[in-house]
Parts: sequence; structure tokens; C-alpha cells
Amino acid sequence: MRNARIGIIGSGAIGGFYGVMLARAGFDVHFLLRSEYAAVRDQGLVVESAVHGQVRMKVQAYAAAADLPPCDWLLVGAKATSNAELAPLIVQAAAPGAKVVLLQNGLGVEAQLRPDLRSDMHLLGGLCFICVNRQAPGVIRHQALGAVNLGYHSSPAEDAGAAIVAEGAALFQAAGIDSQAMDDLDLARWQKLVWNVPYNGLSVLLQASTTPLMSDPHSRELIQALMAEVMQGAQACGHVLAQGYAEHLLRITEQMPDYWPSMYHDHALGRALELQAIYAEPLARARAAGCQLPRMEMLYQALTFLDRRNRPA
Amino acid sequence: MRNARIGIIGSGAIGGFYGVMLARAGFDVHFLLRSEYAAVRDQGLVVESAVHGQVRMKVQAYAAAADLPPCDWLLVGAKATSNAELAPLIVQAAAPGAKVVLLQNGLGVEAQLRPDLRSDMHLLGGLCFICVNRQAPGVIRHQALGAVNLGYHSSPAEDAGAAIVAEGAALFQAAGIDSQAMDDLDLARWQKLVWNVPYNGLSVLLQASTTPLMSDPHSRELIQALMAEVMQGAQACGHVLAQGYAEHLLRITEQMPDYWPSMYHDHALGRALELQAIYAEPLARARAAGCQLPRMEMLYQALTFLDRRNRPA
Repeated sequence: MRNARIGIIGSGAIGGFYGVMLARAGFDVHFLLRSEYAAVRDQGLVVESAVHGQVRMKVQAYAAAADLPPCDWLLVGAKATSNAELAPLIVQAAAPGAKVVLLQNGLGVEAQLRPDLRSDMHLLGGLCFICVNRQAPGVIRHQALGAVNLGYHSSPAEDAGAAIVAEGAALFQAAGIDSQAMDDLDLARWQKLVWNVPYNGLSVLLQASTTPLMSDPHSRELIQALMAEVMQGAQACGHVLAQGYAEHLLRITEQMPDYWPSMYHDHALGRALELQAIYAEPLARARAAGCQLPRMEMLYQALTFLDRRNRPA
Repeated sequence: MRNARIGIIGSGAIGGFYGVMLARAGFDVHFLLRSEYAAVRDQGLVVESAVHGQVRMKVQAYAAAADLPPCDWLLVGAKATSNAELAPLIVQAAAPGAKVVLLQNGLGVEAQLRPDLRSDMHLLGGLCFICVNRQAPGVIRHQALGAVNLGYHSSPAEDAGAAIVAEGAALFQAAGIDSQAMDDLDLARWQKLVWNVPYNGLSVLLQASTTPLMSDPHSRELIQALMAEVMQGAQACGHVLAQGYAEHLLRITEQMPDYWPSMYHDHALGRALELQAIYAEPLARARAAGCQLPRMEMLYQALTFLDRRNRPA
């Protein structure tokens, strides 16, 4: 398995962290970079991890997809908002029968990308439970957690899914990363939304990180109400989440160090927010199943207003 | 009627505007001021009105309630959050049988103040449909509208209500101000909430004035959804608002010049927000009537979070 050649597309916090962890474990990892290419080529990547200590390493860095060797696995850590633009690069770097893993939040990201991939390519989704952010070019701060839940989306061979998901999970596990193979990718994605919908959105709307959001009883109640709505939406769409799952996430979040979700950073830096995948698509699916989620809809409307004002056309 | 002696308690934008209009019409008006006393004593009050032109006048200004002559009518234009503190001053300035009008938004403000008044005093509520704000000490900018809807709360004489409300409305009308006597004060207060709940709260949450809030389709839908919830809450509490009332307010707001609601200014200046009267009390009454208003509750929770962070204990 260590022979697997892995390409990292979008080496921000997520791609950089998992890429470094895999490279450290002996995998052959290749990083496709854009703005940080020169810095990473010269100085390598640094992960300042509260879990693994400081990991600093020279890496195989590329500025152009055409320069990457054909990769067996492609981990996409870029924002879902840039998938359309990244698709040709992913295809260019893919070995025949390559497996593409979208390490992204929200719903519908695979369906959107699938038509732009080759028919021999497998497509998976990965949900990362991790507190990580980019500190400087080539420098990643890992505060806590790290697990990746993998699920299967589509492939040339109908029945290959389970084996490939298991292979992907084994790959992460070999790098010391908790990884679960999920039977149902949509269920895995709804599960992750129970965290992303409240915390990502409220970090932008209230300009607040997890600790103050959890400490104030009003925002805490709002988080719980939003979580309950996401659970309802999942259920209406046929995905039954475990009883007590929201309480489990509340406990984990309380045990985390104070954390600014990625959407906060995107907004602060004037980048597009992942509103389609995290809010619009789940709301549309719930609505189609006859389920109204008023708080989540309000959060989506408010964030859309703020996003548009933040990035005038 | 011109003999009526009128005291203005809290001469900010609302108190200052209506006081000047009444004084201009020949009423005997006395202004109780705090931080702006010296400026108003020396330079008088100025209303820069888009409707009435510039009105500049010397006024009878006081720094202490004990110095006011006994007033027949007391118009309270201060924030509802300061009523408890103002009660002794109102009592001090009140002639026997005085009528007190709370020119404030929200629910429950009269019930909160009533125990602090004398039993001979009448208590009314007034809902102001006006775009007005304070520009500088003693300078008030009036952008549009101006009507006051009056309703009766409580009195020593059970049956005096209707006559006193009519008298109050006539007083405003004599000063060229649109004023309606309302049979049901709570209905009048719920009616005004249909405007205040969305615009006041969203101006703080989205840091936006009426024009951008109405132009963006997402925030506009959110405003409509919040208005619909307030109408539902009113109905659950037994107050049936006219069909199409929300649409009427949307049209009025679109015709208004761009306007920053008072709650925006309160937040920007680090003042307490009127969250109890405008959000908490209506939510509690609706809930007691079996009616959940999820968006309004979310807005209340978010504003409470922002207010607490804005004014650390």
C-alpha cells in the first residue's frame, strides 16, 4: 500500500495537513500548489501540531498539474467553490482508475464534479473532523482532532465501492489518522453538517469562535436548535443519524481549544463562502422532502447577504 | 387645548421632534434633558426636516425634574431600557391626573412602569412611525413620516380611556402630526412590531440600513418571513392584524429614504438594546399561546449574544 502515489490538490490547511501526515508515513506524496508554490518548494511544509508536535519536511511540490506524475489517489482539499476550476487539473494528475477524494463539507459536491472527471476515475467524499488552519505560506497549525470519514460516490465498476473506501480508510490509518469507512456517503455528509451548519455560519454572522459561542446560553441554544434542524433535514431525506449525535458534537466542541471555523477565515479574507454545499443544497433537499428548516434558512439568507456585500460583483 | 402643559422626558430624536412640533404649534412644552442640557439651553433645538423644513427654536429646557412645572401630558421618548430609572422623574413632573405617553416600541413597557407611577396618573402608549435620528446635541434629523398611533393602558377611572386617547390624538393632530386613536394598545404594539422586529434586529446583525436590506432578495425574503412570524404571534395572542399589513409596510419602507433604525445606533454607541420589549416579551407571549416563532427567536438569541459582547458586564 505504501506504493500508492498520492496527489494533493489544493494544499491549504486540509490538503497540507493530510499530505504531510501521509508523506511522513512513507507514502509518495505530490503537492500541487498555486500561490504558495515558491515558499513550499524552498522551505517545505511545516505542521505545528498540538497532537503530533512540529512536523517539518521537504516535499515534492509542483506549480502545474502537467508536471505531477500520474497519481493513484487524489485528495482535494481546496474549497468546494473552486471544484469546477480544479476539475481539469485533477484529471490531468490522475492515473488510470485513480481515486479522487473530496475532503470538503456540504452536500452535492461529488455530483457537481463527476461530469468533469474521466469515466475510469473513482469518486469518494471525505469528511474531516479536525481543527486546523493555515498560519503562513507553507505553515499549518493543527489544534485538535483529525479523523476522516470516507464514503463512496461513483465509479466505473458498480460493486467496487466498498473495497475502495476500505482501502482509502486503511491509507489514512497507516498514516496514524483515525478513518472510518462509511456505508452511505450522504449520511456521512449530513452528519458533518450537524457541526458545520451552526458553527461555520455563526462564526461569520456573530464574528465569534467556538468558545464564546458555547459559553453564552443564547448562542448555545441557537446552536442546539440549528443542530436539531439539520438532524430533522437528514431524517426527512432518509438518513437517520444516531440519537444523541448533536449532544456528542457539543461535548467534543467544548473539549476543543477555541477554534475559528474555516468559513470565518474565508469571509475575513474576502473569499467565496461554501454556502451552496453547506446551506443551499441541504435546504433544497429537505424542502423537496417536505421539511422546512427555518433557522437554517435564515442563517443561509443572512450569510448570502453578508457574502455579497463582502465581495461586490 | 393649547393650554395643555406638556413635558418631554428624554429629549433624544423622538422626544425632541414631537416636542418641537408641539411647541411650534403653540403648546407650552418643557424639555427635561440630561447630557444635552447645556447645548439646548444655549442654542435651543433644531429639527432638520425633509417634511417641514428647518425648524429652529428656543425651548424651555431643564436639567432636573424638580424644576419642571406640573405637566398635564408627559411624553416619554427615552429608550424603554431606562424606564425604571426615569419613573421618579416622570412622577415628579406630573400634575394631578397627568397623562403619561410612552413613545416606545415593543410589548410590556407600560406594565413595567405602571407600579412606579401614582394612582391618579393615566398611562398610554404611543407608536411612532417616523424616520428620525439625533445628529448632534440639540440637532434632530427628520427624514420621513411622523404619525403617532395612541392606545390606552391604565387609569384611575376605568372608563376614561377612550376620551383621553382621543384627546391625545387631537393634541398631536393640532401640531400637524398624523395621529390615530387605537382601541387596543396591544394590537397597536404588535402592529408596530411587524416593522421593528425585522428591521431593527437585522440592521444590527447584518450592519445594514433599509435600502440594501430591501434590495437583496435574500434579506428581503428574510424580512418577509420575520414579518409573517410577528403576524402569527399577534394572531395567537388574539390580535388580528389587517390582511396585507406586512406588504403595506414593505411598500412604505421601499418609499422611505435609506434609513438606519434606532437599534443600529444604540449598538454602534454601545447602548443597551431594547431586546426585552421588542423580542423577549412578544416571544414569551406567543409561546404562552402555543405559538413558536423560530426566526424571531434566532434573531433574539443572536442579538443578545452581540449585545452582551458589546457591553461587557
